[in-house]
Amino acid sequence: MTDQRKITLDESELPTHWYNIVPDLPTPPPAPLHPATHEPVGPDDLAPLFPIELIMQEVSQEQYVEIPEPVRDVYRGYRPSPLYRALGLEKRLGTPARIYYKYEGVSPAGSHKTNTSVPQAYYNSLHGITRLTTETGAGQWGTALAYACALFDMSCEVWQVGVSFDTKPQRRTLIEVFGGTVHRSPSRMTQSGRAFPDDHPGSLGIAISEAVELAAQDEGAKYALGSVLNHVLLHQTVIGQEALTQLAKAGESAVDHVIGCAGGGSNFAGLAFPFLREKLQGRLSPTITAVEPTSCPTLTRGEYRYDFGDSAGLTPLMKMYTLGHDFVPSPIHAGGLRYHGMAPLVSHVFHEGLIEAAALHQNECFEAAVEFARVEGIVPAPESAHALAQARRVALAAKESGTEEVIVVGLSGHGLLELGAYEKYLAGQLGDDPLSDADLADALAHLPAV
Amino acid sequence: MTDQRKITLDESELPTHWYNIVPDLPTPPPAPLHPATHEPVGPDDLAPLFPIELIMQEVSQEQYVEIPEPVRDVYRGYRPSPLYRALGLEKRLGTPARIYYKYEGVSPAGSHKTNTSVPQAYYNSLHGITRLTTETGAGQWGTALAYACALFDMSCEVWQVGVSFDTKPQRRTLIEVFGGTVHRSPSRMTQSGRAFPDDHPGSLGIAISEAVELAAQDEGAKYALGSVLNHVLLHQTVIGQEALTQLAKAGESAVDHVIGCAGGGSNFAGLAFPFLREKLQGRLSPTITAVEPTSCPTLTRGEYRYDFGDSAGLTPLMKMYTLGHDFVPSPIHAGGLRYHGMAPLVSHVFHEGLIEAAALHQNECFEAAVEFARVEGIVPAPESAHALAQARRVALAAKESGTEEVIVVGLSGHGLLELGAYEKYLAGQLGDDPLSDADLADALAHLPAV
Repeated sequence: MTDQRKITLDESELPTHWYNIVPDLPTPPPAPLHPATHEPVGPDDLAPLFPIELIMQEVSQEQYVEIPEPVRDVYRGYRPSPLYRALGLEKRLGTPARIYYKYEGVSPAGSHKTNTSVPQAYYNSLHGITRLTTETGAGQWGTALAYACALFDMSCEVWQVGVSFDTKPQRRTLIEVFGGTVHRSPSRMTQSGRAFPDDHPGSLGIAISEAVELAAQDEGAKYALGSVLNHVLLHQTVIGQEALTQLAKAGESAVDHVIGCAGGGSNFAGLAFPFLREKLQGRLSPTITAVEPTSCPTLTRGEYRYDFGDSAGLTPLMKMYTLGHDFVPSPIHAGGLRYHGMAPLVSHVFHEGLIEAAALHQNECFEAAVEFARVEGIVPAPESAHALAQARRVALAAKESGTEEVIVVGLSGHGLLELGAYEKYLAGQLGDDPLSDADLADALAHLPAV
Repeated sequence: MTDQRKITLDESELPTHWYNIVPDLPTPPPAPLHPATHEPVGPDDLAPLFPIELIMQEVSQEQYVEIPEPVRDVYRGYRPSPLYRALGLEKRLGTPARIYYKYEGVSPAGSHKTNTSVPQAYYNSLHGITRLTTETGAGQWGTALAYACALFDMSCEVWQVGVSFDTKPQRRTLIEVFGGTVHRSPSRMTQSGRAFPDDHPGSLGIAISEAVELAAQDEGAKYALGSVLNHVLLHQTVIGQEALTQLAKAGESAVDHVIGCAGGGSNFAGLAFPFLREKLQGRLSPTITAVEPTSCPTLTRGEYRYDFGDSAGLTPLMKMYTLGHDFVPSPIHAGGLRYHGMAPLVSHVFHEGLIEAAALHQNECFEAAVEFARVEGIVPAPESAHALAQARRVALAAKESGTEEVIVVGLSGHGLLELGAYEKYLAGQLGDDPLSDADLADALAHLPAV
């Protein structure tokens, strides 16, 4: 093992392919269904929203999908991303565990989201698309897509969840610096938005409906999704592939824990699926854990059912852990984790017992994040703080039992645009809002009958 | 030459020494003088403020000063910093020039300031110092020192220039996340601060007076300065040394322009002095340019005179280009460039004709910064934007003349905590406030008679 702080890779070690876990799974994941007919969705159904390359990736049975050279060229600006050994944190916790974190905050958008925004913009650009629409929660996805659109000369229109729009003007400005346009969601521009009052806090489900509605109406426009779908998870697998190479370089032959935060599931899958491949093939045997907030506990308290990806029911029905497509989570600061569902692929491997899940309160997450910042010099995104807090639990258990475990954490992004949340935490003004049983029952009552 | 976007170095290529330009200069720089006696300052005069190692570095005649291993260990977390070839920007400008930028925004504080905060905290920690005081303008230096103090278990107290404190709460929060304490300057805690009204916008000069006053009163406390002094410039020379190695790696055997922004002068010197060494020794012949704002045009319109480093006259008298120690520049957004003086070493080499200077309006700088962000994926700090705007001028001139020049720009930090300034720029609400002749004459009238 290494005592280097930072394990870097050369450009030559940048992955050449994305990894598709589907053909490696013991059982195939359930197909998405057409919202009206309840028949399996075909490529034609998705054509109004996505270019053909992404549709083919969505249903691909190939284990590896080649990364186009123009995409690799942009990746090279910030990838391979560093894997850090958390020497400062280990010392602070007094744990015999070795903690590594894979840091995606080095990207232009400050998070993993660029890994998929760049190929999505690229594929759309091949078909003369001039405008991409999307939703954003915390704002990381909107930023990433605006950046990618600027690179490929497309305009970018972002519906931002109301509560984030209201409390984080910096995010809007950053999207505008990259040339994008931002609308508060629910907006007055769409039928889906007008169904809600002006001052509604919004949700990812509503914002998705708005962006989808607009894209479907404009021939030159397509829609881009920042998580949930198979092709998005696919693009993120550069994270886990690089991490495996870096751990080998650090001399680690075993991994005991892989921990990532999960909102829609793409950051988690990007890190975890290459490790799950190693586990399925018997080369590694880590416990793989998805961490979510107690206020939006999709995996830990949701139902595994067919549900819509958006609030208006415009998307296909996907079999996933869900709290109901019209669930509006409390406005916690990890905006990227406020999604009612979970990526069908992540839901499937969880249902099959191949991964674990945990739900944490946001105060515990911010406590871990501040501790981390002071010893490691990086302020984590509130989403990433969930993974760090879970890693802290595991590292302290290892201290208790005196075992030399290896922990790999996904640090999906930095929190420099979320300092308002840190300010509240430091002032003791941050609430914990676990979802109540009554609200959960109410949310689940609205699931579609499929 | 390379067409790689990112030229990285291994940890093994991290500089082992800082470079001291003093013994290489054709003429020695004028000595600092005691504020009361006007005699040259000796080590004893500085002992209440700084530990002995920093005092010896301040007056060192050694060409190279070894970087202590604990400092190199922290540097390894983020250094060697990347040198980027600005392929996107070159294409956008249509210039035959090759533009490289050395990016210091990868550090924990998001700027070059950690290069000196870490050694300053380290040396103080060797002497049982438990508290460091300092000033900060935009907040980058306060952040860097708070981070370094957290690493070496010291408390950190920061006087932040009032106008920055009022308009940038995120910076304060970031300093607090790293465990530091922030006071608005002018504060009520010091005699120097109480000389000004509560709602005074403040200046770096006033904030320095406050931090120095407090440190001088407390035996367990010392003061740390983020720029101006020789030892601070010395620590920053890792930037230029790495850049030279990286340019060689990129296959560049000649450099035509080296451009850095200059407030106190440490970022500029850190990049430029290793290049100036090459120039003095006849191996390279770049034009080296310090860029400052028209609202605080120290080199371009100040006088080369002995003046105080702070507003209350507590520091030694230093021979430097100055606008007068009680000059309060207009509240432009490049807070780090709002300093009345210029590092004595930078002033000296400018006076000797070894470097050039240029002053730019902030709107031109933000225009260059937005253009840069859209093609390069990095939002520059408003300070760094000054260097980018000057580089843009040079690159467009090269386009005009059809010459294949090599331009090296210092990108001292990211602007993710300065998005309020970008918001104003995008809304067309950013003023240009060049210093008027009357205000300049008034400021210069208050220079001490030495």
